[in-house]
Order: sequence, then structure tokens, then C-alpha cells
Amino acid sequence: MSKLPVIVGGTIAIDNVITPQAEAKELLGGSASYAALAASYFTSPVHLVGIIGHDYPQRHIEMLEDHGVTLDGVERSAGESFTWTGEYHANMNDRTTHRVGLNVLENWQVKVPASIAATPIVVLANMSPDNQLQMLAGSTASSRFVIADTMDLWINIANERLHDVLKELDLFVINEGEAREFTETSNLILAGKRILAKGPRNVIIKLGEFGAMLFSGEAENWEISQQTFFRSAAFPLHEVADPTGAGDTFLGALAGYLASLGKTSFSFEDIRQAVVKGSILASFTCEEFSTRKLQSLDSGEIAKREQLFKHLTDW
Amino acid sequence: MSKLPVIVGGTIAIDNVITPQAEAKELLGGSASYAALAASYFTSPVHLVGIIGHDYPQRHIEMLEDHGVTLDGVERSAGESFTWTGEYHANMNDRTTHRVGLNVLENWQVKVPASIAATPIVVLANMSPDNQLQMLAGSTASSRFVIADTMDLWINIANERLHDVLKELDLFVINEGEAREFTETSNLILAGKRILAKGPRNVIIKLGEFGAMLFSGEAENWEISQQTFFRSAAFPLHEVADPTGAGDTFLGALAGYLASLGKTSFSFEDIRQAVVKGSILASFTCEEFSTRKLQSLDSGEIAKREQLFKHLTDW
Repeated sequence: MSKLPVIVGGTIAIDNVITPQAEAKELLGGSASYAALAASYFTSPVHLVGIIGHDYPQRHIEMLEDHGVTLDGVERSAGESFTWTGEYHANMNDRTTHRVGLNVLENWQVKVPASIAATPIVVLANMSPDNQLQMLAGSTASSRFVIADTMDLWINIANERLHDVLKELDLFVINEGEAREFTETSNLILAGKRILAKGPRNVIIKLGEFGAMLFSGEAENWEISQQTFFRSAAFPLHEVADPTGAGDTFLGALAGYLASLGKTSFSFEDIRQAVVKGSILASFTCEEFSTRKLQSLDSGEIAKREQLFKHLTDW
Repeated sequence: MSKLPVIVGGTIAIDNVITPQAEAKELLGGSASYAALAASYFTSPVHLVGIIGHDYPQRHIEMLEDHGVTLDGVERSAGESFTWTGEYHANMNDRTTHRVGLNVLENWQVKVPASIAATPIVVLANMSPDNQLQMLAGSTASSRFVIADTMDLWINIANERLHDVLKELDLFVINEGEAREFTETSNLILAGKRILAKGPRNVIIKLGEFGAMLFSGEAENWEISQQTFFRSAAFPLHEVADPTGAGDTFLGALAGYLASLGKTSFSFEDIRQAVVKGSILASFTCEEFSTRKLQSLDSGEIAKREQLFKHLTDW
């Protein structure tokens, strides 16, 4: 079958990032930017849905277009772009947000143009659950596969709406700390099971440098088996320059890979493989600031890393 | 080749453990107890070296003997046994030590009886670096493979002596937090490389519920490759009843498996497989208090879990 297109909705940001080693400004950021770019390595077109202000750097837009990302779904507002300024500390896991400029995001209502509304692989990257539901309402595909991510903020301030999103999902991606918080348990296996019970047919708990866990199947009587659970490592890195966007990259690569299979219904094995692609692409994102590494990959480099990853984890 | 014996030196304790769910007293504890018991599933005999007081429960001794663990190297002192009382908190990772009764450990000098001194697979389970060096001095095997573990306490109060131990090792096992502290870096790949530079030919960083990393080869110019690095997951558990001794179990199972290969020089592939055995056995230890689960295994149960583990992590 031929590859399918992907539609990715989420934030498009201007990031300013400080790490113990360096500092960089006016970077391409935002959940949808990373996810769309990552997806572009596996399928095309990738339709981006989001909002930017009048001040958004033209070079970021051009780079995305160069990767086969379409911008018909990106609203250009007269306001100022969404900006995030944050700092990573010595362990590169903890970060402090210094400033968030919501700006154009504040009253954003997601609109999906008719030209891309029927896109069958739908990615709701991290944005408010209200925005995620608006994007879903604008999706007209008769057969589709819906994947979403979230963040701790929405668990805290929009918990009910987030539960509404969960009921619509084929695959939900959440990170470790958020999963523990969301399900009020410290045991991640139990957390995965509890999230399955909230609606999604598949759940991935991202573990950062420790990889990811995939849970699949009916929540009732769910048990660990080779058809319901997969544990992936993360590709080992000597040095993490900037982990911003690694989770969004994971999400987008996973979606792009699934779209490349040319269908909207996936086996457990398909999703296992997608988790591996997500892990590989996320490792590249961590190697340089922003999308600098992610935007300059070629398929040979990705395949080579995947092969090494296989050797490093196989037994 | 026929299986080789293992000698395991370390602590033999009476543990009192509190978890959020339950509490249990007068348990078999200590690094060497877990390690010896775990090793016994792969090879025999397993020679235990340690010290106990007059009050040590006879039932624990008998259980160990039932598993082919010999006690000729266990000194029986007129003093009181080493005891540890600790409590696990909700996440089962953090624990508080309520009381440590060093007792017989306080002035212990390790003596290895001549009858077991030539044992070729040598395990220095967690005890003071001084005790580890005494045990090594008592080992007379012309060809041997030496494996050691440690804990944060020794990094803090016996750092120099710990470095002396490291120079003698074929394989050093340390947990994540300790590795970061010991090498003053948050990056675990860098930590592994730095520990290799301290002497051991192989290093394992244990990641608790996230598995383990194996580093091997010359520290100088060390790079990640399929001959120098292996990343193992941990077997997923719905419920952790008591993680005490999981790391010691890992160590012992690993050593027992290597001994079962009937040689004292191991390929990277041998050690990879040993890491998997360690992970499997450690998962059993977590399922019940103390050694209750570990002591009641059979080879079919171990093989079955290993097979499932393979399926859950393969791609």
C-alpha cells in the first residue's frame, strides 16, 4: 500500500534554551514542530496545524517546508508568537521554565482546513485538551488512527477535558512522571493498565533516558503478555545537548512510521516497531539544540542507528 | 566443560522490613545471602563467606544448605548478628533505614578457609572495601574471575579503599545513583566509561525497575558498540512487595550463570547473557519479602520468565 499523510496539531513556539554548557535563542520549538519534522522522515505529506504570530522567524517555516511539511493548517495571527524560555540543570532531566509567553495561543481555536481535514493519521501533539478536541472535531476521515500526547499542566488544570480526549484515542503517549501522577500509583505497569481503562486502545509511557513501555488491549483483565506489552530501551547517548522536544519527536516519528505502512488499523507488532522508530529519532533530537540535529538527518543515518540499537539491546 | 563452584563473601543479616502494605521481622537478609541463593540456581556448590552471631535463626541456615550453599566459610561469633531495619515508602524506591546493628560485623576480618580458597568464580558482595580486599587476599585460585558490588556508604567513607578493590576486578556492579555520585556526572554512559577507567574490565550499572547497562573493554577511547555496550530492561512487575536484595540477587545470578559455563574467561556475549539471568532472578526477589520467592523457584519457572522477557523486549 502507498504511504498515508499525517496531520499534526499542536504548538509552534519560539524557544530560548539554557543548558549547563550553552545557551541558544530564537529556536524552533513547540510540540507540533518537532512531531511534524520527525514524521517527515517516514511519510509525506505531513500537514502541520497550529498558530504563529507576525514575528515568527521565516527560516523556521522554510526549514519545515523543505522537509515536506505543509503549512496550510498554520494560522498566522497578528499577535506575538508563543514563546518558551527554560533552563536545564546539571542532570539534564530537571528543568526550570523561566518564562512562558502564551500570546497567540491564549484564545486559539483550532481550525482544520477542508483540504487536509480527511487526513487519516491524526496526531494531537501536546496542547490544551480543548484544542485537541477542536482538532478532532475538524477531522473528517472516515477511517482514522488518532494519537495524542499531553503534559502535567493539563492533568492539573484540565483533567476532565483530558479524560474526554482519552476516550477518542487509538494511542495515548505520556511520560513517566505524568503517568504516575495521572493514575496515582508509583508502579508503572499498574499506571499503564489504569490509563488503558480510561479509553485509549494503546498506551505508551515514555521513560526518557530509560526508553518506553507500550501497553495494548482491553483494560479489563489486562495482563502482561507478548501481545499486550513491549519494553523498549532508549538509544544510549554520551552527551545530551538539549532534551527539549525529544518526547514530541518520539510521537511524530511513531506516527510517521505508522502512516508509512499505508493503513489505519495496526497490529501490536506494527506499534512495537513504531516505538523503536520513535526512540531512534528522539535520540537524535537530544544531540543538538532545538531541531538542529533532527532537521539534518538522512535515511542512511537513521537506518544505521536503528541497526546499532538492535545490536545493543538484543540478547 | 563442567560447572565451576562460586564463592560469595558479604553480609549475612537479620532484616526487619516495613513496606506500605506490610511488615515482616527476623527475615533472612544480607548481600551474600541473596547472592549465594541466586547463584545456587545456576551452579553448585556455592560457598558462602560471612559472619553470624549466636542468635542467627537456624531456619535461614538450613534453607541455604538445602540450596547447595555451603557454610564452611561462615564464621559463628559469640556476638549478636548484623541486623538491618528499614522502611520502603509509597514508590518502593526510596527507603529509610531505621536501625543498623553492625554487631559482629564491627571488627570482622574475613577469613577464607583453605578448603574453599581456590574457588575460581569470586563474588565480593556488598561489604566494606576492607573486607572485600581481605577476601581477595584469601583467594588462591590461579585463574579466577572476580565480581564485586558496593554501596553509597563505601563511596563516602572508604573511597580510596574502594578504588583499590576496583583495580582487582573483572566485573564491577553498581547502581545508578551510586554510579552518578561516584563519577560526578549525571550521564550514565559517561559514568560507565569513567568507572572502566578505574580498573574493572567490565562494569554494570543497575537501573532498578529500568534494567541495567553493561560496559566492557578498554576505557581509553571507549565507544558504544555491540562489543562494548549492552542495555537490558528489567522484567516488568505489577507489584513490588519488597525490593530488598534485588541488586544482590542480580549479582549472584550473574555469577552463578558465568560459573555454569565452566570457565574463568568470558566473552562479551557470555556477560550479556549473565546480565539477563541477573535481571530475571532479581524480578523474583521483588515479588515477596526477603528470599521467600527466590528460595522457592524451580528451573522451569525461571526458563519460562526468561522466554517471556525475551518476547516483551525483542523487536
